[in-house]
Amino acid sequence: MKKLRLVTPGPMMAPPETLLELAKPVYHHRTPQARAVLAEAAAGLKEVCQTRADVVILTSSGTGALEAVVANVVQPGDTVIALSAGKFGERWVQLCRAFRAKTVVVEEPYGKAIPPARVAAALKEHPNAVAVLATLCETSTAVTHDIESIGRIVADSPAVLAVDGISGVGADECRTDAWHIDFLAGGSQKALMVPPGLAFLTVSAKGRQIVESRSDAAAYYFDLKKALRAAAESDTPFTPAHTLIAALVSSLRQILLDGMEAVWSRTRHMSRAVLAAIRALGLESLAERPAAGVTAIVAPNGIAADDWAKLLERKYGVKVASGQGTLKGKIIRVGHMGYLDALDVMGIVAALEWSLRELGFAVEPGAAASAASRVFSDAYR
Amino acid sequence: MKKLRLVTPGPMMAPPETLLELAKPVYHHRTPQARAVLAEAAAGLKEVCQTRADVVILTSSGTGALEAVVANVVQPGDTVIALSAGKFGERWVQLCRAFRAKTVVVEEPYGKAIPPARVAAALKEHPNAVAVLATLCETSTAVTHDIESIGRIVADSPAVLAVDGISGVGADECRTDAWHIDFLAGGSQKALMVPPGLAFLTVSAKGRQIVESRSDAAAYYFDLKKALRAAAESDTPFTPAHTLIAALVSSLRQILLDGMEAVWSRTRHMSRAVLAAIRALGLESLAERPAAGVTAIVAPNGIAADDWAKLLERKYGVKVASGQGTLKGKIIRVGHMGYLDALDVMGIVAALEWSLRELGFAVEPGAAASAASRVFSDAYR
Repeated sequence: MKKLRLVTPGPMMAPPETLLELAKPVYHHRTPQARAVLAEAAAGLKEVCQTRADVVILTSSGTGALEAVVANVVQPGDTVIALSAGKFGERWVQLCRAFRAKTVVVEEPYGKAIPPARVAAALKEHPNAVAVLATLCETSTAVTHDIESIGRIVADSPAVLAVDGISGVGADECRTDAWHIDFLAGGSQKALMVPPGLAFLTVSAKGRQIVESRSDAAAYYFDLKKALRAAAESDTPFTPAHTLIAALVSSLRQILLDGMEAVWSRTRHMSRAVLAAIRALGLESLAERPAAGVTAIVAPNGIAADDWAKLLERKYGVKVASGQGTLKGKIIRVGHMGYLDALDVMGIVAALEWSLRELGFAVEPGAAASAASRVFSDAYR
Repeated sequence: MKKLRLVTPGPMMAPPETLLELAKPVYHHRTPQARAVLAEAAAGLKEVCQTRADVVILTSSGTGALEAVVANVVQPGDTVIALSAGKFGERWVQLCRAFRAKTVVVEEPYGKAIPPARVAAALKEHPNAVAVLATLCETSTAVTHDIESIGRIVADSPAVLAVDGISGVGADECRTDAWHIDFLAGGSQKALMVPPGLAFLTVSAKGRQIVESRSDAAAYYFDLKKALRAAAESDTPFTPAHTLIAALVSSLRQILLDGMEAVWSRTRHMSRAVLAAIRALGLESLAERPAAGVTAIVAPNGIAADDWAKLLERKYGVKVASGQGTLKGKIIRVGHMGYLDALDVMGIVAALEWSLRELGFAVEPGAAASAASRVFSDAYR
């Protein structure tokens, strides 16, 4: 018997109530029932994102929502500032190139965060930039960005701020309206506790104005004008994955029962506990500013990260993610958001320790669990 | 969001594969398909019980299987030796009285085990006893009995040995044939990882001989002669809960993939880890001989056990059992068998500590998790 703990930073696990929603009979998607479900999903996402802006739900992976931003905002030759400090920052850059933007890349090495001052400098140098593309949680390095400060800077410019929140929304604190985020993109399969298949995008008034002003957007499936008009009627331009949207409603109800402050706090405590556990083992986190929902752990000298990940899965049923790109073989990434709690984290940090010991790395037995337990114990007081 | 950990010593949690079996369409129970399922379930139960004896599957709670023993073996006025050191020992006594046996009660206080020597003495004093009724794991006190020694003693007498293994089978080591158990009773909802609704009973050749010799058993639904005849044809005398039997097959496949030695060892390690954790907190286990699948923890002075249990459920989603009878308010009982693993136990022992601290009991933060982690770490080396 092996219980699987899927703790990659996406997809993450979904609650049984949500999964049972997906086992219900398929009903038609152009019905009052389906519209009510879509309306509840949109309202719930607004609360998760802390926004009164429009929200569109897309049947695609999160990347579809990123493409929707670029395709609808950027015209060929437009200047766009893309912030890149990892694989998902690079995705923004690739999208800009695919849509033939003049791309200004503000880059930092993997593990670092983009300093907001660099965004201010880039905007000063490129005052005609139409958009700044940022990442809330850079999943490849487990860094969370200071979107609040970046938002304050971009708000003073004509550019819109688009944020890839795919692995961040519902884990890291994120206040769309208060932080002046014009487009916040998310996916279903991480902190939102639904299997993959859905993306969503918030669109501010400033963002909508740009979208409406673009008469020749290179978009059809991801045409935001059509999507926004349909969303206003609780509808979609194309057949949505409406049973996944019903599942999303189930997960959103569970999330909003607690409220976002509680969810963010719970997720941040899981991060602190994992960080304390790895410090107790003498290990380091890669991230300069650790994200709430995922931790990138640098494998100790002499341990191949991929061997560690394989042992964790094979023996303990703990499925973590390996490093991507230049980080391959150097880190493992452990997700701790959504349908995961302190008790789960206790088991996971213990397995991190047991597996390291088995690989020959000297550990003080019990140190990881003890350190994590102390973090939670103080949090619960 | 609150994840429920159902760790009462029954019912325990069931794997998703097993639960999905129950979501399949209902089919007819008098079909080759249903007979094949019943045959596989019986074969699997034999391996779990380490027996070549007959096995009957009953649609009832575990108590039904105990009643089947008494009703089919004991005639009014027969002498029966009932071993009682807790609430489930007392159940044997009540059954004996209901079926008007002359009941010899060999009793020990709650928390103790019946010494095998007392069984030998009772048999010597009552050589005409037709049965000795014992309990593998006494769920009310989390004591496991030395059935191996008791079996050796009873085998030398004309009496049959019946063992209530409802919370023990699949958790505590139990070798039906090698230990001379004539009737071993179990239920679906504990280590067998199936929701409640099924019981089963192994019947040795010696047991079957007694059953066949009783011409006027006060049994109809629990008539073992009928049940054994039907079982020989992979059938049942009455409509069985055949979808639960299909679920049982799913769980048995998962159990037997590991094999019983591995299952017993895994369960015993979970017990050792919980015992180490409570010792690290300065607490005591009630049981003289702790069972592999459940631990009874004596609440420390000044802490009402029921308050502790309520806090564990309300705040941490950990549903434990309270004490029964005279132990009410004094102990909590934590199950750790079946669909539970080391990672689950890490979270549970941490929650035991966090909740005690919150109730004002002085703990060394991290001590419980550290102690449990060290037990597993050594076991995994």
